[in-house]
Amino acid sequence: MSAKPEVGIGIVGYGLMGRAHAYGYAVAPRVRDLPCAPRLLVISGRDEGAVAQAAGRYGVEEWTTDWREIVERPDVDIVDVCTPPGTHAEIVEAAAAAGKAVLCEKPLAVDYASAAAAAKAAADAGTPNAIGFNYRRLPALALMKQLVDEGHVGEVLLWRAVWLSDEFLDPEIPFDWRFERAMGASSIADLGAHLIDLALWMVGEIAEVAAQSETFTRERSRRTVDVDEASSVLARFAGGARGVFELARVCARRPCDFFVEVNGTAGTLRFDYPSLNELWYGDAHDDATLYGLRRIRAEHPTHPYAADWWPIGQGIGYGTTFVNQAADHLERWPDGPWQPDLAQGARVQLVCDAMERAAAQRRWVTVEEPA
Amino acid sequence: MSAKPEVGIGIVGYGLMGRAHAYGYAVAPRVRDLPCAPRLLVISGRDEGAVAQAAGRYGVEEWTTDWREIVERPDVDIVDVCTPPGTHAEIVEAAAAAGKAVLCEKPLAVDYASAAAAAKAAADAGTPNAIGFNYRRLPALALMKQLVDEGHVGEVLLWRAVWLSDEFLDPEIPFDWRFERAMGASSIADLGAHLIDLALWMVGEIAEVAAQSETFTRERSRRTVDVDEASSVLARFAGGARGVFELARVCARRPCDFFVEVNGTAGTLRFDYPSLNELWYGDAHDDATLYGLRRIRAEHPTHPYAADWWPIGQGIGYGTTFVNQAADHLERWPDGPWQPDLAQGARVQLVCDAMERAAAQRRWVTVEEPA
Amino acid sequence: MSAKPEVGIGIVGYGLMGRAHAYGYAVAPRVRDLPCAPRLLVISGRDEGAVAQAAGRYGVEEWTTDWREIVERPDVDIVDVCTPPGTHAEIVEAAAAAGKAVLCEKPLAVDYASAAAAAKAAADAGTPNAIGFNYRRLPALALMKQLVDEGHVGEVLLWRAVWLSDEFLDPEIPFDWRFERAMGASSIADLGAHLIDLALWMVGEIAEVAAQSETFTRERSRRTVDVDEASSVLARFAGGARGVFELARVCARRPCDFFVEVNGTAGTLRFDYPSLNELWYGDAHDDATLYGLRRIRAEHPTHPYAADWWPIGQGIGYGTTFVNQAADHLERWPDGPWQPDLAQGARVQLVCDAMERAAAQRRWVTVEEPA
Amino acid sequence: MSAKPEVGIGIVGYGLMGRAHAYGYAVAPRVRDLPCAPRLLVISGRDEGAVAQAAGRYGVEEWTTDWREIVERPDVDIVDVCTPPGTHAEIVEAAAAAGKAVLCEKPLAVDYASAAAAAKAAADAGTPNAIGFNYRRLPALALMKQLVDEGHVGEVLLWRAVWLSDEFLDPEIPFDWRFERAMGASSIADLGAHLIDLALWMVGEIAEVAAQSETFTRERSRRTVDVDEASSVLARFAGGARGVFELARVCARRPCDFFVEVNGTAGTLRFDYPSLNELWYGDAHDDATLYGLRRIRAEHPTHPYAADWWPIGQGIGYGTTFVNQAADHLERWPDGPWQPDLAQGARVQLVCDAMERAAAQRRWVTVEEPA
Repeated sequence: MSAKPEVGIGIVGYGLMGRAHAYGYAVAPRVRDLPCAPRLLVISGRDEGAVAQAAGRYGVEEWTTDWREIVERPDVDIVDVCTPPGTHAEIVEAAAAAGKAVLCEKPLAVDYASAAAAAKAAADAGTPNAIGFNYRRLPALALMKQLVDEGHVGEVLLWRAVWLSDEFLDPEIPFDWRFERAMGASSIADLGAHLIDLALWMVGEIAEVAAQSETFTRERSRRTVDVDEASSVLARFAGGARGVFELARVCARRPCDFFVEVNGTAGTLRFDYPSLNELWYGDAHDDATLYGLRRIRAEHPTHPYAADWWPIGQGIGYGTTFVNQAADHLERWPDGPWQPDLAQGARVQLVCDAMERAAAQRRWVTVEEPA
Repeated sequence: MSAKPEVGIGIVGYGLMGRAHAYGYAVAPRVRDLPCAPRLLVISGRDEGAVAQAAGRYGVEEWTTDWREIVERPDVDIVDVCTPPGTHAEIVEAAAAAGKAVLCEKPLAVDYASAAAAAKAAADAGTPNAIGFNYRRLPALALMKQLVDEGHVGEVLLWRAVWLSDEFLDPEIPFDWRFERAMGASSIADLGAHLIDLALWMVGEIAEVAAQSETFTRERSRRTVDVDEASSVLARFAGGARGVFELARVCARRPCDFFVEVNGTAGTLRFDYPSLNELWYGDAHDDATLYGLRRIRAEHPTHPYAADWWPIGQGIGYGTTFVNQAADHLERWPDGPWQPDLAQGARVQLVCDAMERAAAQRRWVTVEEPA
Repeated sequence: MSAKPEVGIGIVGYGLMGRAHAYGYAVAPRVRDLPCAPRLLVISGRDEGAVAQAAGRYGVEEWTTDWREIVERPDVDIVDVCTPPGTHAEIVEAAAAAGKAVLCEKPLAVDYASAAAAAKAAADAGTPNAIGFNYRRLPALALMKQLVDEGHVGEVLLWRAVWLSDEFLDPEIPFDWRFERAMGASSIADLGAHLIDLALWMVGEIAEVAAQSETFTRERSRRTVDVDEASSVLARFAGGARGVFELARVCARRPCDFFVEVNGTAGTLRFDYPSLNELWYGDAHDDATLYGLRRIRAEHPTHPYAADWWPIGQGIGYGTTFVNQAADHLERWPDGPWQPDLAQGARVQLVCDAMERAAAQRRWVTVEEPA
Repeated sequence: MSAKPEVGIGIVGYGLMGRAHAYGYAVAPRVRDLPCAPRLLVISGRDEGAVAQAAGRYGVEEWTTDWREIVERPDVDIVDVCTPPGTHAEIVEAAAAAGKAVLCEKPLAVDYASAAAAAKAAADAGTPNAIGFNYRRLPALALMKQLVDEGHVGEVLLWRAVWLSDEFLDPEIPFDWRFERAMGASSIADLGAHLIDLALWMVGEIAEVAAQSETFTRERSRRTVDVDEASSVLARFAGGARGVFELARVCARRPCDFFVEVNGTAGTLRFDYPSLNELWYGDAHDDATLYGLRRIRAEHPTHPYAADWWPIGQGIGYGTTFVNQAADHLERWPDGPWQPDLAQGARVQLVCDAMERAAAQRRWVTVEEPA
């Protein structure tokens, strides 16, 4: 086995994202030949019993109930932030101040101002930093981006992105941080951030938005729910394309069904998450006898990430996105840069803020940095 | 064969809709036992050669270049209006004044005022009148309505309806009436009217809308295109549900791909036109082991219209909607009422107008009759 | 309207096929400009009340309880045979003897000998004759044949064809002629004949077969069921390709789900009946970046039959196959030839017989005419 | 972290299966709380450079060019056999003789006699032993088995299983062991073994088979190809059900598309590997209004393996099967038993042998142990 330099990882937060990120670091060296060896040193959480159990289950050497210990440990090289969004900015800033590289889950913060501050802190630190838009590392979506960049759809005219889940449908679900805006929760930020990132990545800047939001169950566990359960958004891109976003958590028997589609002057590309190894493509100019969309199996050896994984047709899953993310970051260790960075996290947050404002104020809102 | 009373049909307009309606009358008696025998007496159009050929091809006995002749013929019982929308209101009003029953293609007129006037004229005449929302007669959509009404989705929370085609993608397509707003053309009215009708039918009144519209090719054949090629709309229903509509004609390799989905407190229903004999249903409360949507084959003998057609699994197509429409109307001859009537056509136009205004004025617009 | 020469049609049998054929003749002139005008003169059946009602519903002028009257009527030009298979040969032969053109539903007869005799009688009469393999007239399958002929799959290596229904699953379904081999019933002949015809049409002669058959419910209404409820067959084509056929009527919640797939040296083509307006195609040699099958929308104006029907994306259904069949025959009236002819019906029956013998004798059987 | 007892793993063979198995052991402790800690001690292969590189990439501590070293190492507890099938039996027997637990990739051997001998050797050793039918650990297929066992399809009537790939389509692919029968290669054994295992598992014993096999490219690199490129098989199960198997490696643009379907007196279950997180189910007796198959998302927390992985809707991939396999085995360390065991591997081989003999001898062959 290799005697590669070790990179110490500290994970702040032991929920689903903490688990997924730990999984990513553990598996990355098994699928790609990396220049360094990640070592899961420590994980933190406020519940002592739970974090101890998580450490064991996720394969992390130690645990703590104080995230500041992670930031202060000299052997921690990368601070990986997986707590609820309302806590991100403070942790990112502390980690940056300590000279750590930072990976932060999305959304970066509760609003653009704090997101921008966190991104600036990380940039100023000069260490690699990244935001956890893991779906960019899904092979089919990475292929979609590649095909857009190569001109397969021509000039983009339309974009639509929809995310449907049923996680909030039942009014009996008790209150937790996901229903509390002050914690950074909102469907626009939680689900929407992924779709906005994909839109900015593939189509370019969003110039202005109009939106509506609704909360159907306004009280849970006798506490007020102040986040949107469903939002829909109209968007004008700076380049002239038009877009639609929809985010909804009250869609029965839709567990996590998101799709994105782009229509351009030369073609159409469409991705449906329930068929996550496929990408649909229609070329406006090919033989009319074969008119239609083709279902690309996004696992060909020539496709993004395919060489790390399995023979074509076998399929990868959600976990792969975290493995690819960890591998991409570790491959660029220690110099970076990492992509997408926290500045992109802030850019996405700027759009989220505009969407929220547009919904609240019932008007078109320009996406622009506050004066 | 029966000696059923004859019903004289006069069709105004010989384009695709004229053909489809003639097909509907011709086939209806072959699939349903009707109380009367439709007779295709006459069809009109301005191009003498073309209308003569169409008469032969569609099985219409006579033709004329003057639609007023149709309205004036005593043997014509039903005037079926299939011309471009800008001409509808005048023809409907003339037919109503002559005491004819009227079926008018959608959209009913170029704006709400003329649509409402036409609908009123027809109502005042006291004869049956209808608007051509043929997709209501698609078995799968009729089943969707039935399941909504029976409570299978519970209280409706969300509605989405999208119509994608590529018919305007090529900038070299020459100018014709479809690019001219004064003729009643617009994607909101042409494509959207169907989806708005389905929304009003299944969910109820729309209270307000915000919208955006875009025209990517603004000139064809050196004439200005003043209709929207793509529009997207946010909607709030009077009952509290939220909705999204999207209409686009610049989507490569999407010939006519529309879908509608409704999410309610108890379930989800989804219809995709490319699989027009299927309806997807998810029951929020059924056995979690079987979690998912089921693909209902909307051709069971217990389903709407199924008894008129083929054994389950064989499938029907687009033409069936026109046959079912004609059969439903003839079955209620001569007393009516027909559904949906021209008043519904006007209600849909009211929503279209609000959408257009919302896009033009960049603001939320209340759907309400002008003072 | 045209004063086209009339062609008198007499339909023997008023069941589903009688209805479908009547529908075909009634609608054909509405979708294609034909050189003649079909007239539905007479329909026959043994149950007086039922046939009278059917005549009215199907739009046939007269009815009779004696099919010989149809054959003997001078104004009947085409005898269309829609009775159970066990009666076909006699009727075909009588019609041929009377100098009538004949269209006979599949399977042509109860065995090859009688099928061949019937085909010969029709050929000797010199009038047009055809067997009712209506699915050849489904646009997507006609396109599949065209693409095979044009070399899109190269040399054929493999063929598979499966037909699944649930029509015999319930053991309580009472006995009728479909359970009686002497009436010409069998899954191999009833369902299989279509698939065998498609195989011979697209791939070529079948040289030998092995097979198994099973009857799960061996008694209904206290009568012995002596037909197969499910059969599966291995086939070697004369050209070297290998094939599989499966026919089954005990597949829960599969109403009529058949598919055919051909794999060749240059590509794959696949058709699924539940998506009857689509054809899947994979080109072995196109750009690996786009690896996959494409879903062709088999309704492009350049596709078979498309010009007669609706704009691309709107879809046709089962009835269309009978309309296209009638139109193809009437278009070649009175000289013919019609395709596929009764000789093809006999060829298919030869294969059916071989399959049945292979199942009964538990051995490979060569497909060859009896010495 | 835990101080769990270590289990030493030695992997024989560093190809795709060696990689997948190493991946399984590495990831298993990250998704399940295991009673022991697997340690990837050593991997073997004949090519020194390649095996050294593989050891590094797969995270195995040491490597050797002599598999016997693995068998002889006292710290190796589990010998995991991932070499070409022709070498399996000898290695399994040596490992068993050395008192090791054994996991062997499928097919177990080149024929039943050697498979049975290997299985007996392992059983005699008394240590846990298993055959690598990894697809049993795919959640959707595990759920399918569960639903069959719970009676959701009633008594099984029909089984079909098809595996299509294009891996041998190109005649220019050079000769390697996969084209050599003496190495244990054959489509029946390589692809078919999985499907036979699933059939025996879900439906029960196969009583007799008829088969055909074809090799379209009979020479590669000037060497004779003596394996089947495509085989199809008819089967009668001991319980009365009938089945079809098809295995083909010449299907253009089909990378690895397998499906299995079972039809019973009470329902239908179908699995398509390209949609590996879904299972289709139709209940013969549920409400006819909802007639159809439902697409179960096989990731619900109540479903097999779901608790180890991601929230419903996120999806797992091929690698998961190897992780679940390793976890299931390690969870039962050191006492076992493991399932499916090598005896099941031999049972599957018995069926493979019968299929090959049936194809070669062109007759029905009883599946029975040689006298």
